Amino acid sequence: MEIIINPPQKKWSKILKRPTQTFDQIEKTVHYIFKDVQLHGEKAVKKYAKKYDKVTLNELLVSQIEMDECIKTVPETLKNAIQLAKSNIEKFHQAQVTKSVKVETTNGVNCWQEKRAIQKVGLYIPGGTAPLFSTILMLAIPAKLVGCKEIILCTPSDKSGNINATILYAAKLCGVTKVFKLGGIQAIAAMTFGTKSVPKVYKIFGPGNQFVTVAKQVATTYGLAIDLPAGPSELLVVADDSANASFVASDLLSQAEHGIDSQVILVSTSRKLLDKVAVEIKTQMDNLQRKEIASKAIANSKLIYCENHDIALDLIDEYAPEHFIVCTENEEFYVNNIQNAGSVFIGKYTPESAGDYASGTNHTLPTNGFAKNYSGVNLDSFLKAITFQKITKKGLQNIGPSIEIMADAEGLSAHKNAITVRLNSINKG
Amino acid sequence: MEIIINPPQKKWSKILKRPTQTFDQIEKTVHYIFKDVQLHGEKAVKKYAKKYDKVTLNELLVSQIEMDECIKTVPETLKNAIQLAKSNIEKFHQAQVTKSVKVETTNGVNCWQEKRAIQKVGLYIPGGTAPLFSTILMLAIPAKLVGCKEIILCTPSDKSGNINATILYAAKLCGVTKVFKLGGIQAIAAMTFGTKSVPKVYKIFGPGNQFVTVAKQVATTYGLAIDLPAGPSELLVVADDSANASFVASDLLSQAEHGIDSQVILVSTSRKLLDKVAVEIKTQMDNLQRKEIASKAIANSKLIYCENHDIALDLIDEYAPEHFIVCTENEEFYVNNIQNAGSVFIGKYTPESAGDYASGTNHTLPTNGFAKNYSGVNLDSFLKAITFQKITKKGLQNIGPSIEIMADAEGLSAHKNAITVRLNSINKG
Repeated sequence: MEIIINPPQKKWSKILKRPTQTFDQIEKTVHYIFKDVQLHGEKAVKKYAKKYDKVTLNELLVSQIEMDECIKTVPETLKNAIQLAKSNIEKFHQAQVTKSVKVETTNGVNCWQEKRAIQKVGLYIPGGTAPLFSTILMLAIPAKLVGCKEIILCTPSDKSGNINATILYAAKLCGVTKVFKLGGIQAIAAMTFGTKSVPKVYKIFGPGNQFVTVAKQVATTYGLAIDLPAGPSELLVVADDSANASFVASDLLSQAEHGIDSQVILVSTSRKLLDKVAVEIKTQMDNLQRKEIASKAIANSKLIYCENHDIALDLIDEYAPEHFIVCTENEEFYVNNIQNAGSVFIGKYTPESAGDYASGTNHTLPTNGFAKNYSGVNLDSFLKAITFQKITKKGLQNIGPSIEIMADAEGLSAHKNAITVRLNSINKG
Repeated sequence: MEIIINPPQKKWSKILKRPTQTFDQIEKTVHYIFKDVQLHGEKAVKKYAKKYDKVTLNELLVSQIEMDECIKTVPETLKNAIQLAKSNIEKFHQAQVTKSVKVETTNGVNCWQEKRAIQKVGLYIPGGTAPLFSTILMLAIPAKLVGCKEIILCTPSDKSGNINATILYAAKLCGVTKVFKLGGIQAIAAMTFGTKSVPKVYKIFGPGNQFVTVAKQVATTYGLAIDLPAGPSELLVVADDSANASFVASDLLSQAEHGIDSQVILVSTSRKLLDKVAVEIKTQMDNLQRKEIASKAIANSKLIYCENHDIALDLIDEYAPEHFIVCTENEEFYVNNIQNAGSVFIGKYTPESAGDYASGTNHTLPTNGFAKNYSGVNLDSFLKAITFQKITKKGLQNIGPSIEIMADAEGLSAHKNAITVRLNSINKG
């Protein structure tokens, strides 16, 4: 942990710099696999599953029987916890539904905007030691709410061809239409082009390692949309003397256990608190399962003292944290003025893990400074806004002459003519 | 013009295929210029302005005096037309403002979503023969409405260093904060990194040639967001016997004059109408200023007969047109059921050029099939949605135990611990 006192503004960007990731080597592999899957479909996909995931599969699709049998093994307590989370996530995302926007901008000129679902979406859930079923809730629930027709999920199986039971339970509960035993670059390529069993989708959502991240980027060059550009997860806490050092330390550690490249920053107007939190981190660290990972992330963490809240806010806005916890007396100051953050957690009893699992907000958020220009995943991520307009004869008489003048000034005579032929016809009629 | 009768579904994707664009050669140039601008800033930018635009500039920023003098030359009639367009665009985009979404998902768990402006945006307006001032209205008006702090505009000057007067008029009218005489790759690079005079921005909007398109893509690899992936403009008209062939032809031609790669498609359930429109196109073509361009685009256009409206709708949804004009008796059928389109124009008196200039809807729309997964530019394009949450002691007691169970199941003990330390403290207190 590095403690930094009153850093001058010109040093902020250096202090707050995220680790840069270079993907040049990976990109070549990704392009190669994409071309192969584009040409050879299912056969290529299975070849890479064997090569990278050491698994030989006849069927990629998880059958109904397999799903039902597997789900039986999920403990009731876990099912109940997931159902509570689902209920909250549903409520918060349902509330984001926007009505059609309708305006008569000029007499006879009716314009409106309506949102319609992206018809086919693909969710990617990584494999590995931790089964990230919570991400299925965050992605499948809003997709189902807006009415996406096809909601498929790709996740790698273990070497025996099995998928984690809780993953399957969450997928079924949240309305995923098909689950495929497929991970890594080959999964993203399969959803990009479609194969015999895996449908092509229009937008891909979900986290992944560096291979999946680059594969999602490459998928965009084939016309697909993706949820967000990715980067390591990060948390910034702002706290003053009113904060509970033990709670703050627990939040910083919950972020640190994600990975050794997780970013953890504490900003404080109290030097005393910085010291207390540093001590608490050491105490709590010992009891963590993922101590080795967390301790590496914490070693790179920064505890920054700022002499007042105005300076602290400017520094935080420059960093644009994915997760932003506010534990200060004047919490309204940060809540009202923060411009760049993914999700904001306010007060002593609002740990980041509440939003990660069950409060109702989405946990797929902009990292890497993207909170300056991207929203986290929300209901609109699964919709497109389409505009409509219908103009009456009178309406065209009202705005037509202005359009003719502007089209003329832009040198577009056919645009002008589309108005003129109609106005002439109205005048004749 | 190719007339196609009842194409079988399996041939649709071939018939509706857009021209593929390859950018490999351009990419190298773009990367080279970006690196140069990143290293040498203003000096590099001016070097490329000299090389590509044949202009030597001391100051890139258009001064207040220069702007005011130049604006005086814009004719009053054109000013009035632009003001009418501005008023309609403002009304339609102002109506898109969404209120904060607030939900108590569980007793004591308060979640809300608020939108905040992207602080710094850059607009790009191409130079060339036609001064596209209408695009300034479409981009600067919503940026100003949501309160973006910095709204800069880059557009190339002519060889004497002058910018078109109407461009400057529109920029000033719509609240652009600074206008720079800068075009092409070097303009996008300047907005990506910032130079001595040009501020770095967070999101870039606006059309451009293939160099600008690739430069915008490359800007995203440096952390910037862009409005939309680009492609040639396109129009699909669906029409039956009730349609006016002359009006339909005028719309197809207005699209065709954009460029030789513009896509123009007519779908009809009436073979008679297809023939009539083909004749009308020939008649109207002769009077167009941009006849040479339009005739090349029309030569690649397709007139498709479908035997009923259900088939026509499916074909249109597969194409996902940027602009979609509905001139049929049962217009409600298309309006209610279309899933993939950028903007929909309904009825005889609603030409595409109304939406291009003055009805109020935005003309920056998804091309190239991106209407399947992207919205056109709208008010939200200039905002980010941020989520907030505040949980009470009681609230944490309500959802905390479920979070502990889920974090445990995902193997994230520090996430669990952030809940446990708080629940323990509440129980003790």
